Amino acid sequence: MSNKPGILWFTGLSGSGKSALAGSVQRYLQENCGARAYILDGDVLRTGLNSDLGFSDADRAENIRRAAEAARLLADAGLLVLVTFISPFRAGRQMAREKAVPFPFAEVHVACPLEVCEQRDPKGLYRRARAGEIPQFTGLTSPYEPPEAPELRINTAELTLEESTARVVSFLLAQGWLEMQ
Amino acid sequence: MSNKPGILWFTGLSGSGKSALAGSVQRYLQENCGARAYILDGDVLRTGLNSDLGFSDADRAENIRRAAEAARLLADAGLLVLVTFISPFRAGRQMAREKAVPFPFAEVHVACPLEVCEQRDPKGLYRRARAGEIPQFTGLTSPYEPPEAPELRINTAELTLEESTARVVSFLLAQGWLEMQ
Repeated sequence: MSNKPGILWFTGLSGSGKSALAGSVQRYLQENCGARAYILDGDVLRTGLNSDLGFSDADRAENIRRAAEAARLLADAGLLVLVTFISPFRAGRQMAREKAVPFPFAEVHVACPLEVCEQRDPKGLYRRARAGEIPQFTGLTSPYEPPEAPELRINTAELTLEESTARVVSFLLAQGWLEMQ
Repeated sequence: MSNKPGILWFTGLSGSGKSALAGSVQRYLQENCGARAYILDGDVLRTGLNSDLGFSDADRAENIRRAAEAARLLADAGLLVLVTFISPFRAGRQMAREKAVPFPFAEVHVACPLEVCEQRDPKGLYRRARAGEIPQFTGLTSPYEPPEAPELRINTAELTLEESTARVVSFLLAQGWLEMQ
């Protein structure tokens, strides 16, 4: 099998498991499907392409715009792009969907209750945000607008990583993003 | 054969033949070497990722910075990236080279005398610049700093497209950017 180009946009709170799920999907696709999948990560992008941006409203919007453009470039190069971005606002995700044309785009809501995310706190960000060290922290002092009709919604508090991965791969197969060579 | 990831940065005046050469190299690599090559074009980038930028000194520098970051992302995804950018200043090209690390980077100076470029004028830009419609036009009213030690220098006024393509492919083979599978 191989992949068609396309963009899977993983959105969810910090600590919801976006990166873990995308990493697992990437490994599965490469090892079992001969697919070329690339992870475009929000934190990584802020160290390179988006290193000049801060966290004002304008900069956050520009952050998403560039991510959407970069995802489109990678899809244009033939990749199945796994974007992991908190991307809290519907408008930003809608813009990413529109910029993806003519490539297929699907929103994966990595849904996990805030309490669970905060308990996991893999990067210690919730602790710092509660201590007032991070202003406008999504979920605490800045809103997260859940997708109303995502192509996939995966509750990582209830499913194992293997089950979550299987759901994403099944979706890609059903939608024809993976094809027999 | 397949390709290693890397960045070939084609620099030269408007009309020097960067896009024609990169397109020919891409076709050759895909058809004969099973390589995955992607063209990152300056004009195209200005319609997407860099659509918010103008032509001030600061915006031109940011234009190159983002191109260099995008090229690195594409190399990180496994591609042989063919960047076609006038990129008139040494400092900008040096920055792109530094950002490419750890991927190999090579500068291809698409050298063609200004008179020949102006005679070709494939987009009518020289005519418009001479008429005063385009300020700061590279080669006329804004300088082009030729690379002092490019990995490759190709004079498209003297070589055919086939000869030019062969030189680039030979370079890639000699440098180990293409490998037997």
